[in-house]
Amino acid sequence: MPQQDRAYATREAILHAAAEEFDRLGYERTSLTAVLARAGLTKGAFYFHFPSKEAVADALVERQSDLWARMKESWRLRGLDPLSALHGMFAESADRIATDVVLRAGVRLNADREVGYPGVPSAHVMWEKLVAVHLAEAAERGDLRPGVDPEAVARTLCGAALGSRLISSATTACADFPDRIREVLGHVLPCVASPGWELSGSQTASEVP
Amino acid sequence: MPQQDRAYATREAILHAAAEEFDRLGYERTSLTAVLARAGLTKGAFYFHFPSKEAVADALVERQSDLWARMKESWRLRGLDPLSALHGMFAESADRIATDVVLRAGVRLNADREVGYPGVPSAHVMWEKLVAVHLAEAAERGDLRPGVDPEAVARTLCGAALGSRLISSATTACADFPDRIREVLGHVLPCVASPGWELSGSQTASEVP
Repeated sequence: MPQQDRAYATREAILHAAAEEFDRLGYERTSLTAVLARAGLTKGAFYFHFPSKEAVADALVERQSDLWARMKESWRLRGLDPLSALHGMFAESADRIATDVVLRAGVRLNADREVGYPGVPSAHVMWEKLVAVHLAEAAERGDLRPGVDPEAVARTLCGAALGSRLISSATTACADFPDRIREVLGHVLPCVASPGWELSGSQTASEVP
Repeated sequence: MPQQDRAYATREAILHAAAEEFDRLGYERTSLTAVLARAGLTKGAFYFHFPSKEAVADALVERQSDLWARMKESWRLRGLDPLSALHGMFAESADRIATDVVLRAGVRLNADREVGYPGVPSAHVMWEKLVAVHLAEAAERGDLRPGVDPEAVARTLCGAALGSRLISSATTACADFPDRIREVLGHVLPCVASPGWELSGSQTASEVP
């Protein structure tokens, strides 16, 4: 393997091993020693790639943030009605979180920083805004029932997504998160959508590179 | 003040000061020093009442657990239909959490232990079961739409309650939790209840001693 490929593989091995630990234990309780043991690497190899545990966590948070940006864009390009795009994004997020520990760890680290430590919970604010924009567009098209407040529905959906992920994480390592998120969507969307609205488009994962 | 009353007042002052810190910072980041400074007490006074920080946290968790047990009983005694009782319990829980830091800290400590550290999330399992029992009773009475799964609705409501509390806690110290929980109820219950069902009973706080 060329040196550049080996370096890339080592960096990925560190990220994966760290993700396994962060996902199980959270940031505080994850030790570098456990990450190194899991990856089968020395401290020297680690410090060649990352200056600290925090830097690995940052990289995982950044990776999930990049993925969500690409996922949003890919749903936008499909040109679906806003409620269907919203349904698709929530479902795809849950599917990816359930199956990808690197993503799951990044999501946990990001949420823990924000929810655990009061301040500006930027990821939740970002999601609530994104969801509210879709719902406001749906309202403009007449896809919401009269009197439904797009921002209130955004708060409900984002709160339910966060709580469902945490319970699912604690009970099934997120294995039942895809089912839980689809239950949430099934309990809320028909309640706020106009009777004429119908879910459209393929609701399977988009082609995120 | 008689000695017994003084001892009681000191114990309550410790619980209140600890609750303020736990509510803001969580268990790990709360220091005994900060609790004592807040309560204006010495270490000696503290250790007369509690052997450790963990023991204060245990007392707060137990106190919230006792309150929920009494609250459940008081709603049962009202003899409302199960969906109305469920609505009342969720709304009252949120109202109490928003206004009572001792309760709020106990709830946070209990949930952090469980959600933060995978294992048996007993409080969430307990709530999901309680909510599912109410919904199953509602289904038996014909208060749920055909095909609605009581356990799935319980998962949605409990997930939404947890996520809403966390976001509300991080952004407004739970001040907007009562509004958020009522939004959740308003977005879910009409969707799963039979068209004939109507919210009944006074939905204000019950008389929990």
